[in-house]
Amino acid sequence: MELLDKLNWRYAAKAMNGETVAEDKIERILEAARLAPTSSGLQPFEIIVIENQDIKEKIKPVAWNQSVITDCSHLLVFAAWDTYTEDRINYMFDLTNEIRGFKNEGWENYRQMLLGSYPQKPAEENFHHAAKQAYIAFSQALIAAAFEGVDATPLEGFDPTAVDDILGLKPKGLRSAVMLPLGYRKEESDWLVNLAKVRKPMEHLVTVIK
Amino acid sequence: MELLDKLNWRYAAKAMNGETVAEDKIERILEAARLAPTSSGLQPFEIIVIENQDIKEKIKPVAWNQSVITDCSHLLVFAAWDTYTEDRINYMFDLTNEIRGFKNEGWENYRQMLLGSYPQKPAEENFHHAAKQAYIAFSQALIAAAFEGVDATPLEGFDPTAVDDILGLKPKGLRSAVMLPLGYRKEESDWLVNLAKVRKPMEHLVTVIK
Repeated sequence: MELLDKLNWRYAAKAMNGETVAEDKIERILEAARLAPTSSGLQPFEIIVIENQDIKEKIKPVAWNQSVITDCSHLLVFAAWDTYTEDRINYMFDLTNEIRGFKNEGWENYRQMLLGSYPQKPAEENFHHAAKQAYIAFSQALIAAAFEGVDATPLEGFDPTAVDDILGLKPKGLRSAVMLPLGYRKEESDWLVNLAKVRKPMEHLVTVIK
Repeated sequence: MELLDKLNWRYAAKAMNGETVAEDKIERILEAARLAPTSSGLQPFEIIVIENQDIKEKIKPVAWNQSVITDCSHLLVFAAWDTYTEDRINYMFDLTNEIRGFKNEGWENYRQMLLGSYPQKPAEENFHHAAKQAYIAFSQALIAAAFEGVDATPLEGFDPTAVDDILGLKPKGLRSAVMLPLGYRKEESDWLVNLAKVRKPMEHLVTVIK
């Protein structure tokens, strides 16, 4: 399967060379993230695409000074909703009705069920749930990058509160969850590029109940 | 990009026809999940593959009686570590040294940093972190299924504690996070199959900082 080839090709680039990734590649990577399935179709996250070098420089020190932050071409920040609100839920249900061109009783009942559930839950619980959905999209973007021959670095090592401050996410009801610098590997300064990929053997990962 | 075609092809099948998915397809779907990148490479989850019809029947009532639970071919349960322990962290670092054939001081320091951090954190916080990693693998399995022409249903609508009981996950230090029934769509009883895919427009999802 071609997908497995791409998954074996990709790795977490630890050094990038500053080369710019073409816009059409970025668009297709973002489209893959946009198409990700999410719980109840709510897509409870946004993606901040940072091309601005000054902003990358501000983020670097709150991300363990990792060089890929500033040497990448585009820095993607996946920011999850800080909670589920009535407005956010209604937006997606209204959009669904608009795109499909009809209202459906079952679907409206489902809307009411969600409205009666999420907004009453603790924000922290909702954020964790929303962040998990963001990880589905993050994963799809990561794979899309591999299909485009673009290197990417899955990156959780940063201070989310500091990044939220730099990007002004809090007033927007967002919290940074995970980052994905996109660019091109710089082999001569990347300690990981030539090391074997390490994964648990299948028998440690999978249990089959026949 | 071929990936975008696959992402547009896939949808959350709401009815399956009971047909069995060939073993080689299942193996490649699991391999995609195994190759998923995870935080510090810890792969903090396991995948339970349920072929047994009796077990599926037990799960169905604690999963809103969704028909795909019993009409799928293979029911994948992604179960995250309930917490990070010293043993679990050491296993992955030892495996890394074994596969790469050498010990590295930087890597060993990183091991110590993780040993001094995760095991001291609240289990609930660690579980949420581990579950997010499981979602990366879940997303890769979902895409792999599309590449195999296999339908799949991303499924969070279940009582995790009840599923943990049925599968005996608690004594193994695992908690069910998300499910993925795999099989083949039954178009005539699937209310979703002919409806338009709904996603936020790009401008609602993405902010570019130039």
